[in-house]
Amino acid sequence: MTIEWRADTVRMIDQRLLPAREVIRTYRDYRGVAEAIRTMVIRGAPAIGVAAAMGVALGMKGTAGAKAKKRFEVVAKALRATRPTAVNLAWAVDRMGRVLEENISLDAAELFARMRAEAIAIYTEDVAANRSMGKFGAELISDPAVVLTHCNAGALATAGYGTALGVVRAARDAGKKIQVFADETRPFLQGSRLTAWELHKDRIPVTVIADNMAATVLAQNKISCVVVGTDRTAANGDVANKIGTYPLAVMARRHGVPFYVAAPLSSIDLDCPDGAAIPIEERSGRELTEYGGKQLTPKGVSIFNPAFDVTPAELVTAIITEKGVAYPPYEQSLRALKNKR
Amino acid sequence: MTIEWRADTVRMIDQRLLPAREVIRTYRDYRGVAEAIRTMVIRGAPAIGVAAAMGVALGMKGTAGAKAKKRFEVVAKALRATRPTAVNLAWAVDRMGRVLEENISLDAAELFARMRAEAIAIYTEDVAANRSMGKFGAELISDPAVVLTHCNAGALATAGYGTALGVVRAARDAGKKIQVFADETRPFLQGSRLTAWELHKDRIPVTVIADNMAATVLAQNKISCVVVGTDRTAANGDVANKIGTYPLAVMARRHGVPFYVAAPLSSIDLDCPDGAAIPIEERSGRELTEYGGKQLTPKGVSIFNPAFDVTPAELVTAIITEKGVAYPPYEQSLRALKNKR
Repeated sequence: MTIEWRADTVRMIDQRLLPAREVIRTYRDYRGVAEAIRTMVIRGAPAIGVAAAMGVALGMKGTAGAKAKKRFEVVAKALRATRPTAVNLAWAVDRMGRVLEENISLDAAELFARMRAEAIAIYTEDVAANRSMGKFGAELISDPAVVLTHCNAGALATAGYGTALGVVRAARDAGKKIQVFADETRPFLQGSRLTAWELHKDRIPVTVIADNMAATVLAQNKISCVVVGTDRTAANGDVANKIGTYPLAVMARRHGVPFYVAAPLSSIDLDCPDGAAIPIEERSGRELTEYGGKQLTPKGVSIFNPAFDVTPAELVTAIITEKGVAYPPYEQSLRALKNKR
Repeated sequence: MTIEWRADTVRMIDQRLLPAREVIRTYRDYRGVAEAIRTMVIRGAPAIGVAAAMGVALGMKGTAGAKAKKRFEVVAKALRATRPTAVNLAWAVDRMGRVLEENISLDAAELFARMRAEAIAIYTEDVAANRSMGKFGAELISDPAVVLTHCNAGALATAGYGTALGVVRAARDAGKKIQVFADETRPFLQGSRLTAWELHKDRIPVTVIADNMAATVLAQNKISCVVVGTDRTAANGDVANKIGTYPLAVMARRHGVPFYVAAPLSSIDLDCPDGAAIPIEERSGRELTEYGGKQLTPKGVSIFNPAFDVTPAELVTAIITEKGVAYPPYEQSLRALKNKR
């Protein structure tokens, strides 16, 4: 359980504490949801899209008409400000805004019911998209296969099943013999904490390495393919994803290993011409200087902590979506899939 | 103070505890020194060479003649077994062995004095080599310059001054405006703990990044050159160094940034034809699964933890030694410097 709507509250597992402790947080208003996204109680582009939609629904409770419109501006602004790179968040807020416009004549109770239904639909559609991506992606996976992944693009990064790990799960469910190498993914350790936890629970063999060891396992011909998620993919196929994805793609290319991106259509931003137009979030230096309350780095030292990088489209073998697999040139193939009915 | 011989004991600062605590450990026998090397109380190829020489001297105390020869075999074996990749360790033990052979006719007190003098000479020569490397290397550094480094090849990795950081210090001392980006260097965090500590004390501006962020700072044209140390460089110029050096060299090449290796001649192994012949140490998975006694990774998950990787010679712009700078083809240039009087 990554996130759920229950009795008009939003419940999330606190991903900062995994795998040591499984703590469920309950949020009753949009401010709590915004803070949960900002502090990474929940993370992963599709998951924070769902969280933002649910946050909007919570925020609209008890309002209608002009008041609802005004309230939406406030709520949307707060949620949008939490994390800039993943486009799913803005996409989900925009979608909730359109539903508000269409239903602005309803009374408060009816409007809230409609907003809640839309947030739950975004949740449900995300699981379905992951299942579909899994099926398309699984066809690209050899049997047996050793898949290298970075960060966590699993059930914990989505409403369920996962994008990159959805491909791994679908390949395994199709009877293929799969094992995974997981980059630990500094500084937040989504790989060693979250990906390892998910796969271990699912009995998919997983080996954790430091990010800087991926080049060695690629050079040793241990890896069949790389599969990662994305926070935003531009119209030309440039892929923003967790910091460290770009050098991983360079090393995969150097060693002749296919590099696949699992990207729900909600993460593909045709309004972004290329990677240079994607805003890259910088996070607090404390993610690097501290662990578990312990100071690692001498006080007074500068830190640079970009949370994402951009992998140029030329390094991406294929982009797996819920409507099929896109190949270069991505300008055409991504647009075609986005417009597919 | 990294290591010193005092009153027939070997004293080291415990690098596992830096920068939080500055604790000096004192060793009275070779077993303690071997354990200190194995557990990384002291680390860095030149520093563990000095430590091994001092360990041999401690181990020979009170022996002479045939007994001394036998004792040396035991001591040398224990020290050699601690860490396989850095050739300085074997080089220092071999050098102590030759001095033993030459002085085997001395009585126990005289023999110990001779062995002790040799260990101290290895210490002193290392500092001098670093100063000399610094001078040669500083000429390669622009003014101003932003130097990217990996791991710690500083005073803490040597008898003093440092190899890669010796080049940085010499450039600064020559009046150049220098700042440093330091990879944190997982899993042992030599960058964020040790390099940051050294440079901060020396008032050289330093910015710490996660290893997986180096590609981003290179892509942003922030870096003038990369300078790293080495644990063993093969006759053809292939460079074994801390895990993560190889992908860093690939990214430097991709972004047109020179990649320099500071290599004391003691770390250049002409008996190793190329990188494939260099043994790569694998260390305990606990370096990745735990921090400060806290479990990061779910129990039962596999870990792969190679401590070094090999950077092919084709990615190395130049190798800085205490007798001058070697350029490709390294087969000739390294041999020439090794044989230079």
